[in-house]
Amino acid sequence: MSETEALLDRAAELDKADELGKLREQFVLDEVVYLDGNSLGALPRAVPGRVADVVQREWGRLRIRSWTESGWWTAPERIGDRIAPLVGAAAGQIVVGDSTSVNVFKAVVGVVRLAGGGRDEILVDEATFPTDGYIAESAARMTGCTLRPLAPADMPGAVGPRTAAALVNHVDYRTGRLHDLPGITAAVHEAGALAVWDLCHSAGALPVGLDEHGVDLAVGCTYKFLNGGPGSPAYLYVAERHQAAFDSPLPGWNSHAEPFGMRPGYTPADGALRGRVGTPDILSMLALEESLTVWDGVSVAAVREKSLALTDFFLECVAAYVPAGSVSSITPEVHAERGSQVALRCDGAAIVMDELIARGVVGDFRAPDVLRFGFTPLYVGFAEVERAARVLGEVLRAER
Amino acid sequence: MSETEALLDRAAELDKADELGKLREQFVLDEVVYLDGNSLGALPRAVPGRVADVVQREWGRLRIRSWTESGWWTAPERIGDRIAPLVGAAAGQIVVGDSTSVNVFKAVVGVVRLAGGGRDEILVDEATFPTDGYIAESAARMTGCTLRPLAPADMPGAVGPRTAAALVNHVDYRTGRLHDLPGITAAVHEAGALAVWDLCHSAGALPVGLDEHGVDLAVGCTYKFLNGGPGSPAYLYVAERHQAAFDSPLPGWNSHAEPFGMRPGYTPADGALRGRVGTPDILSMLALEESLTVWDGVSVAAVREKSLALTDFFLECVAAYVPAGSVSSITPEVHAERGSQVALRCDGAAIVMDELIARGVVGDFRAPDVLRFGFTPLYVGFAEVERAARVLGEVLRAER
Repeated sequence: MSETEALLDRAAELDKADELGKLREQFVLDEVVYLDGNSLGALPRAVPGRVADVVQREWGRLRIRSWTESGWWTAPERIGDRIAPLVGAAAGQIVVGDSTSVNVFKAVVGVVRLAGGGRDEILVDEATFPTDGYIAESAARMTGCTLRPLAPADMPGAVGPRTAAALVNHVDYRTGRLHDLPGITAAVHEAGALAVWDLCHSAGALPVGLDEHGVDLAVGCTYKFLNGGPGSPAYLYVAERHQAAFDSPLPGWNSHAEPFGMRPGYTPADGALRGRVGTPDILSMLALEESLTVWDGVSVAAVREKSLALTDFFLECVAAYVPAGSVSSITPEVHAERGSQVALRCDGAAIVMDELIARGVVGDFRAPDVLRFGFTPLYVGFAEVERAARVLGEVLRAER
Repeated sequence: MSETEALLDRAAELDKADELGKLREQFVLDEVVYLDGNSLGALPRAVPGRVADVVQREWGRLRIRSWTESGWWTAPERIGDRIAPLVGAAAGQIVVGDSTSVNVFKAVVGVVRLAGGGRDEILVDEATFPTDGYIAESAARMTGCTLRPLAPADMPGAVGPRTAAALVNHVDYRTGRLHDLPGITAAVHEAGALAVWDLCHSAGALPVGLDEHGVDLAVGCTYKFLNGGPGSPAYLYVAERHQAAFDSPLPGWNSHAEPFGMRPGYTPADGALRGRVGTPDILSMLALEESLTVWDGVSVAAVREKSLALTDFFLECVAAYVPAGSVSSITPEVHAERGSQVALRCDGAAIVMDELIARGVVGDFRAPDVLRFGFTPLYVGFAEVERAARVLGEVLRAER
């Protein structure tokens, strides 16, 4: 039996044993091997019908009545409660709305204010997805703080009496490294500071445990492993113990205790909805709500187990198919440090990715030399993983 | 001929002569008299098909490729350029995205920074839609300014050497009063300050003339007279002369000069797109883009002319049908001071509005005692205006 035949057999066995495999039917997919769900999740089959109903009936026929009759007004907190169990949060702590960037601003200003005076330093993940760093810099400037970029692993040793907060990515967008959320959060708390976690690349792929690990505030997008659609609204988690003192820098009317009182003075609402700002973006928000129905009855632990099996198998297939020395993985081998993607450094990575896409294997390129492959356990199968690695081997041999 | 017959005849004549009347066919409407387009515009017929295509083909089949191939990435500035002629702006000065509240924050912090040091006072419309006031208060707090609420008409006499900026609503959401944008802007400039206008209740209903009158920054929503759909994204105008110095408090990665360079340091893009923040909300944004096609070939001057004719005729019908003393208009009689709505004070206004809605006339109630009727010239006809006033008369007589 050739190595290829053996890996094909293994893939078939793994797919046969995959209890999440049936979920693939709930998505619109085709012959393309789609390994870019960590950038834009695939379309859940239920979404087009719901969106059509929202547009044609709720907007088109009920019009203004839908703000109450179709539950538009309460969507941000209702959908937040739907995301909550996926990130280990009890209900009442998450609201959906705005972009991740805007939520980073609310969160960082919010934690600086919660930390109180005398603390004027913000630690930020030095390899962060750029927007978190740019927005944290603005938040620091506007609150009289300084920003200190650090590797997350160095934060426990660096956090001190001047530190107000640490802003950390749970999974690094580039390398796929999973940072130690429980350990870093505990160390930050030990020094009297607060921890804000960006869950963009972890939510929907692995257990987060926001409540269990005492995270203070968190943000995340919904269009990656949560499959909410292009630019679907992000979310903000404010731990219940901080809600009464949470002081948003964006106190829009949707966060008012009595929004339709139209009062000149601002009185914040209680609870998670204090994180709301302006009128929620209903079409995108309700598409997201429908997309979350694919999670009904799905265990995040099972998703994590499959995710690790997928990335393990991909690394094994890459080792078998790819010419020695042509790629090197920057994704940690150790499970405890790996998210749900594999990032391979490679000469001419941009061209290699174009060629992969032309051959029906979709990942993405991240400057300067990274091939990034994301594995969404809800719809990626093992045969696809084998094929992706095999095609990568073919492309790299052709490139030589 | 009875008074009713005379008004019905007048309505028929006015509808017959209405050159914009044929546009009604482009909207999904029914037997309801919909006078709440100043809160949520009706659904343009072209939108459901476009949204279905965005969801099913662009997201569902092209997936990640749509960010370039379907023009998703450039939608904020492309749609901004589509709104531009409706508010009297040359291309390249408007980006679409985020809520009005978030854009007010960008604009107010932005003008305080543009105004430079030594100016620490922000004038704000004292009767403003509340969110502008709440957000301006936060912007003031975060930039070391104080907020001074004033009637817009008093701003020219109050603006002084300490004033950084004035934030004014073009049309008051409650009374429908149209404020003097050219005069107030000129007075603010005379004192060396900058003017930010909120166009939520004017854009799409009357000429704004942002460039002509030298407005500095402006914001507006797109779900009222622009019919973009529930919570559709708002927009930010930054006059070309201010763009190079515009320093956004929300410098998200979408506003970076090289967003996919993924650089740790922030370098702002040139032009209007410096006002972008995070990933644009594609479903809502492209629904808006499609909704704007109803404006093809429509003159804003003609819209204004019809708007005034509609509100004039409504006031005339109200005077004819409504028991004397039961309502009083708080909308200015003078055309130069009137937007595209009529607000009537009335005892028991909340109950009266419920009854109107039950009888097929949809306006809205604003606390404490205002019946608000908005007139969207693109789809409201004169026979509907007559019917609305007649039903109001019936309701008020029945209430007595």
